[in-house]
Amino acid sequence: MTLNICQIVGYKNSGKTTLMSRLIETMKKQGNHVAALKHHGHEELDPMRNGDSGSHLSAGALVSGVISPFFAHFSYEQEPPLKAFIAFYEQIDRVDWLFIEGYKEASYPKLVVAASLQDWQALSRLSQIKAVITDNQELKADMKGCLPVFSRGELSKIVAFLEKGAFLSPNK
Amino acid sequence: MTLNICQIVGYKNSGKTTLMSRLIETMKKQGNHVAALKHHGHEELDPMRNGDSGSHLSAGALVSGVISPFFAHFSYEQEPPLKAFIAFYEQIDRVDWLFIEGYKEASYPKLVVAASLQDWQALSRLSQIKAVITDNQELKADMKGCLPVFSRGELSKIVAFLEKGAFLSPNK
Repeated sequence: MTLNICQIVGYKNSGKTTLMSRLIETMKKQGNHVAALKHHGHEELDPMRNGDSGSHLSAGALVSGVISPFFAHFSYEQEPPLKAFIAFYEQIDRVDWLFIEGYKEASYPKLVVAASLQDWQALSRLSQIKAVITDNQELKADMKGCLPVFSRGELSKIVAFLEKGAFLSPNK
Repeated sequence: MTLNICQIVGYKNSGKTTLMSRLIETMKKQGNHVAALKHHGHEELDPMRNGDSGSHLSAGALVSGVISPFFAHFSYEQEPPLKAFIAFYEQIDRVDWLFIEGYKEASYPKLVVAASLQDWQALSRLSQIKAVITDNQELKADMKGCLPVFSRGELSKIVAFLEKGAFLSPNK
């Protein structure tokens, strides 16, 4: 089984989470087996550090995980690299698509969500940009001929574009 | 970097968690980089299903993860296989030992914690048993010559035994 990876990047409040949920819905309807990963930049408290995973962490474990039938929780002092999380998804046989929200600097195929020309100018340096998602007419006109551009609402068009390829992970 | 894997298995309340914490402490003092994984058989509620990971799950994701600087949380409908979690640890470069509590039926090198001869008789069918940990004198006498046996308190002896080898993961 192969794993296709699609990052969804953009600035805060650009609508990444909504777009990703709608893409997951649409992809699923078409028979794909989809998984999701979201990066939280902000430093939230760990809700489970007082439990079992915390006790192994206090004992000196660098990473401590607890697996249950409905969830898995890992606590750590130093954030593991994205490649480690991807390796996890690659080993779940039934998953064929992974959508990743965030991790701008990673080098997997990307959809860039841009609200304005300024957004795009700041994000265009990122690697592996496959298409731009925007409702901004000025940006749309500007992009003509450079890269595929879709409106946020054009879900079936975006999905058709994803399924055309170029999103295959090199590792699986 | 190689990943050594050591499962700690035994019946409920046999002292697996305590032994594992003390082994992690001792291994760390000797300069090892240790990680931990614990399997919860019981069906706890997912503390984070109302947040971001839940919204992607409702959209149809088979597995939905949220990564923060201090923890990672994955929600799912169907529990991923142990090999997927191990693939995650294998990709964290600084980790060289993984202790796994539970997953009796998995086939990684194991320490069996047994409180009694009956415990051992029921567990001896498991694969890849490397040693038995017990304070039971009858069982200790019975095991003589079959497999290495250690008391719970013999931490440095157990660690020396682990470091002698035969705990290397075949995949890293």
